[in-house]
Amino acid sequence: MEAAATEDRHEQEGKTTVVALDESEQSLYALSWALQTINFRESDKLLLLHAKSSPISSAALAGPGYVLSSEMIISMERAQEREINAFMSKAMELCKEKQVNSEKYVVPGDARDVICEVVEKLHANVLVVGSHGYGAVKRVLLGSVSDYCAHRVKCPVVIVKKPSKKADQEKH
Amino acid sequence: MEAAATEDRHEQEGKTTVVALDESEQSLYALSWALQTINFRESDKLLLLHAKSSPISSAALAGPGYVLSSEMIISMERAQEREINAFMSKAMELCKEKQVNSEKYVVPGDARDVICEVVEKLHANVLVVGSHGYGAVKRVLLGSVSDYCAHRVKCPVVIVKKPSKKADQEKH
Repeated sequence: MEAAATEDRHEQEGKTTVVALDESEQSLYALSWALQTINFRESDKLLLLHAKSSPISSAALAGPGYVLSSEMIISMERAQEREINAFMSKAMELCKEKQVNSEKYVVPGDARDVICEVVEKLHANVLVVGSHGYGAVKRVLLGSVSDYCAHRVKCPVVIVKKPSKKADQEKH
Repeated sequence: MEAAATEDRHEQEGKTTVVALDESEQSLYALSWALQTINFRESDKLLLLHAKSSPISSAALAGPGYVLSSEMIISMERAQEREINAFMSKAMELCKEKQVNSEKYVVPGDARDVICEVVEKLHANVLVVGSHGYGAVKRVLLGSVSDYCAHRVKCPVVIVKKPSKKADQEKH
């Protein structure tokens, strides 16, 4: 069995799971799902990947003719930095609780490109991504990040949907 | 943490993983991936789901005006039955090797509808599906089954791509 042979090699080398995070509850749920569902061994690694968009490009969504001073840009960048750090620390803490080796990667760029590039470069074994993160406006304009990645990366992709509270109540 | 609370309930009840199979190598690889990657507990269940298309609708792809006698239909149905049974036995065997509780479901109908309906009905916790099964012609006409299901089911969906031999060699 080909998959079994590949598995034997990974058993020694350790597998790399990439979880794409974007400060949304959706992506934190995707991480929790991965920690609970995937069978992590000691040699395995979970990579917490955050694509950091430029605060200027985010501000551009406010409309054309919106001018930012350099102080405003620096201030926005610092605020973004603090938010990302707090979020990533929370994510690292969840991994620690489950005794899963984790590393964080904050990479500047568009989430779609960053995720596909990192997954490819690291020869990741699985990519976990929330179904509805990365901003509603961009999703309408460019399609969902999860769809984009599912079509482009070579490894298995898990698209995690956070169940609505109503659906969860109905189920139990 | 909401996901953790849901997990506590599943710990007692057992989780249901649905793996969609279609007699392709791609879907058998998806099953192997699930068995190696997902953390199955004793109370968990793996459901091997096969959507059985009518042999008549498959034959219709040969073109209009193609007439089948009732003997031919019966013969095709029997051959399909044998193939499915052999494939599902192989799949059950893989689960047994990994000591994972499995059940097989062969449901008549179109794969897209069958998979979504069964996942919904059983409140499955995760759906695993190969990225390129279920026939090339249908995929061109209707889009891939994995895309269809990823957009419709409420639970996390794993889209498993079987790596090409070349890609696997490059990696190791």
